[in-house]
Amino acid sequence: MAAEQDPEGRAAARPLLTDLYQATMALGYWRAGRARDAAEFELFFRRCPFGGAFALAAGLRDCVRFLRAFRLRDADVQFLASVLPPDTDPAFFEHLRSLDCSEVTVRALPEGCLAFPGVPLLQVSGPLLVVQLLETPLLCLVSYASLVATNAARLRLIAGPEKRLLEMGLRRAQGPDGGLTASTYSYLGGFDSSSNVLAGQLRGVPVAGTLAHSFVTSFSGSEVPPDPMLAPAAGEGPGVDLAAKAQVWLEHVCAHLGLGVQEPHPGERAAFVAYALAFPRAFQGLLDSYSVRRSGLPNFLAVALALGELGYRAVGVRLDSGDLLQQAQEIRKVFRAAAAQFQVPWLESVPIAVSNNIDEEALARLAQEGSEVNVIGIGTSVVTCPQQPSLGCVYKLVAVGGQPRMKLTEDPEKQTLPGSKAAFRLLGSDGSLLMDVLQLAEEPAPQAGQELRVWPPGAQEPCTVRPAQVEPLLRLCLQQGQVATPPPSC
Amino acid sequence: MAAEQDPEGRAAARPLLTDLYQATMALGYWRAGRARDAAEFELFFRRCPFGGAFALAAGLRDCVRFLRAFRLRDADVQFLASVLPPDTDPAFFEHLRSLDCSEVTVRALPEGCLAFPGVPLLQVSGPLLVVQLLETPLLCLVSYASLVATNAARLRLIAGPEKRLLEMGLRRAQGPDGGLTASTYSYLGGFDSSSNVLAGQLRGVPVAGTLAHSFVTSFSGSEVPPDPMLAPAAGEGPGVDLAAKAQVWLEHVCAHLGLGVQEPHPGERAAFVAYALAFPRAFQGLLDSYSVRRSGLPNFLAVALALGELGYRAVGVRLDSGDLLQQAQEIRKVFRAAAAQFQVPWLESVPIAVSNNIDEEALARLAQEGSEVNVIGIGTSVVTCPQQPSLGCVYKLVAVGGQPRMKLTEDPEKQTLPGSKAAFRLLGSDGSLLMDVLQLAEEPAPQAGQELRVWPPGAQEPCTVRPAQVEPLLRLCLQQGQVATPPPSC
Repeated sequence: MAAEQDPEGRAAARPLLTDLYQATMALGYWRAGRARDAAEFELFFRRCPFGGAFALAAGLRDCVRFLRAFRLRDADVQFLASVLPPDTDPAFFEHLRSLDCSEVTVRALPEGCLAFPGVPLLQVSGPLLVVQLLETPLLCLVSYASLVATNAARLRLIAGPEKRLLEMGLRRAQGPDGGLTASTYSYLGGFDSSSNVLAGQLRGVPVAGTLAHSFVTSFSGSEVPPDPMLAPAAGEGPGVDLAAKAQVWLEHVCAHLGLGVQEPHPGERAAFVAYALAFPRAFQGLLDSYSVRRSGLPNFLAVALALGELGYRAVGVRLDSGDLLQQAQEIRKVFRAAAAQFQVPWLESVPIAVSNNIDEEALARLAQEGSEVNVIGIGTSVVTCPQQPSLGCVYKLVAVGGQPRMKLTEDPEKQTLPGSKAAFRLLGSDGSLLMDVLQLAEEPAPQAGQELRVWPPGAQEPCTVRPAQVEPLLRLCLQQGQVATPPPSC
Repeated sequence: MAAEQDPEGRAAARPLLTDLYQATMALGYWRAGRARDAAEFELFFRRCPFGGAFALAAGLRDCVRFLRAFRLRDADVQFLASVLPPDTDPAFFEHLRSLDCSEVTVRALPEGCLAFPGVPLLQVSGPLLVVQLLETPLLCLVSYASLVATNAARLRLIAGPEKRLLEMGLRRAQGPDGGLTASTYSYLGGFDSSSNVLAGQLRGVPVAGTLAHSFVTSFSGSEVPPDPMLAPAAGEGPGVDLAAKAQVWLEHVCAHLGLGVQEPHPGERAAFVAYALAFPRAFQGLLDSYSVRRSGLPNFLAVALALGELGYRAVGVRLDSGDLLQQAQEIRKVFRAAAAQFQVPWLESVPIAVSNNIDEEALARLAQEGSEVNVIGIGTSVVTCPQQPSLGCVYKLVAVGGQPRMKLTEDPEKQTLPGSKAAFRLLGSDGSLLMDVLQLAEEPAPQAGQELRVWPPGAQEPCTVRPAQVEPLLRLCLQQGQVATPPPSC
């Protein structure tokens, strides 16, 4: 199995992205003659994140890509040789050079599937030395992806189905790949789009974005655009000087709003005109560079009404400071009054986008009934998962040579469940989720309509359940190094 | 300036790792004829992280590497064309194809330097369109690097100078690069080593690691190693069957500890023997797979004493569960008693390493006077910075064409300080830091020994200070695209 051409280039993991102890244990296994013992590991989490009741499984596609390409290059082996004992048998390094995942089999929860504590996200089986080496990269690829997908899903549940959610946290992520992973998996978790262009290019995530304060403040108003003319939307008729047209509208708008025509910042208006010249069909105003009420809003209306005369409709406004909900209500009122005053009905419903450190609590407020907010940009809160910035997934040995393995430790919570397992989702007659059941692989599968005796984690005694439907949860996605087709999805 | 060969391959950022609004603004600037206007941005943070009083500047090296390689490839430009209006002037895309950082100049706080709110970590000047496009990648490269370096420095201050600190958070990071960045900058911040092999290979960070519970539990005790013989450390004399030798020592150890010889788990002992055969000069025991007192500790002592007979010294034990401080005290007592009993004085001071979700509070306990803990492994707490998972750096336009620019907004805290600036560190006669001073670039620099009138942020009135030394803080690191040599360091 040759390393495939990786279309995502730098965004992938590589074999040395691992903890050193994986390499020292590899030498230990090899020295003990156990490198090729058949082993099985489970990757799972112990508690649902954010004090919640669910997680979403994610990162599987990245894992499969990593596994298919897994090979230690000469430079990798040389580096390992430099940190292992100098008298290490050279045959060990030859063994490392020969490694790939052609004997590795992976079963997994499908990408985006609901996941619960203890149920494996991945079951990884193959030669002991190889599947041990895979621990850290697999944890690294699954843990954060699942965490951020879960976080995004929680935010989507709070926002409700109508609000458009934009992920814009690249600058707050743990470096380039943290940002790419966040954008990819917040989309999986229910966001509509991302600001991250690379996520669009590499992962097909819809991208969105308009302008920042720097664009607005970069204009003083004295700039002379090389071509101030804009043709009508229908393409017929003469072009119009948009800045001059906006200036005319500004007087009407200021009279309507009771503002002096000198109050709105001329640089802000010039910036809006420049943006509208570049994006006449997608003009959006960022209103809070100076003052929303006395500058951003009248300047936006002047440019939007000038565009409207040419047959173009503005697509939105954005706020990035202050009381976002309150301002959105006020702006909507102004839009309604201006729509009536200037007889441009579409102005009433121009979408209002907001951003500014929005967390779950702030989102709940913005999503409340009657809110005039339409689009919500979330950065830090979705990307860094501040309520719980790690899912804490673990990767535990459950069998060697078909024999179960168990860790006891000094913390009961860290004990592992021994043996190779199967997992099933039990559903009620209305399709609702009753529970997930974990059992030994050799036990008979639960049957629809038949009573099953189960022992919920932490319960003092077993109980019975009669599922209307039973779904196997762990799907084959890599069999002896070959990718299963079609890849499992939820 | 051609894109250099990047020795770190996938670990770097690339130009499309940016927010879409940088590209839409680029089109806006270009349409307005302002692409080449001279602009200056400042990258800074508004508050010290973690409720603390300092931060460390970091990520500069990554920024310089990114800037030197900055070029949009054809595929990048094509992707941007696919998300910008279809009637966009093709000359704009030609302009994008021609971009590089050959007209960009960067001044920066040196890598690892103490940093305070408002003082720029980076000052970036150059053509408006280009320096705008750089916003998101520079924020992405600086923010988390500085955050994790600061977090590591705080942990080092709590631990004191003697404890060895190991970063082991790769599996908890935001994907591959989050892990690499965390390892790199926690080393910068004061950690001794990392478990992350890639950080060793690519960044020269010292790497460390031994064995996990999976290695221990993978052994049942019935395994037969292909070569159980170990030669003496001095290299002379016949080899010895280490497992047999450890079995003999086990009886002495159990008698000494008052344990039955059947109590210690034979699989754990087999694992220790296997590890010792691979690493006779670096044997370390992980003690808590089954029971520290009744299994891990006697098995470790048996193997360590067998190795000792051959002239090797064990290098450590590790605990990953339970009350780490208390167990370390008990283990040290056992080591002292066994050292006396078996006349192996080195056993007294075998280092004790601990791990298990150690945060600032737990670290303070482990570092208290009299603690017998020597090495502390920290993962989640250093990598995810759970107290504050984002530094919240911003990148603000301060001048265009030599004219100052300012944002007011609806939040006073989000207002920017206009104009191109210089920054100085004022020191007392004993070298202690008095304050950092931010002033306009054209103002005369503060002079050592001369009284200076300053206005601390938030103060009601100015005060005076007389520094014994004055250091300029912002050092040239990229001049018109050329890397300044030597690169600035603290």
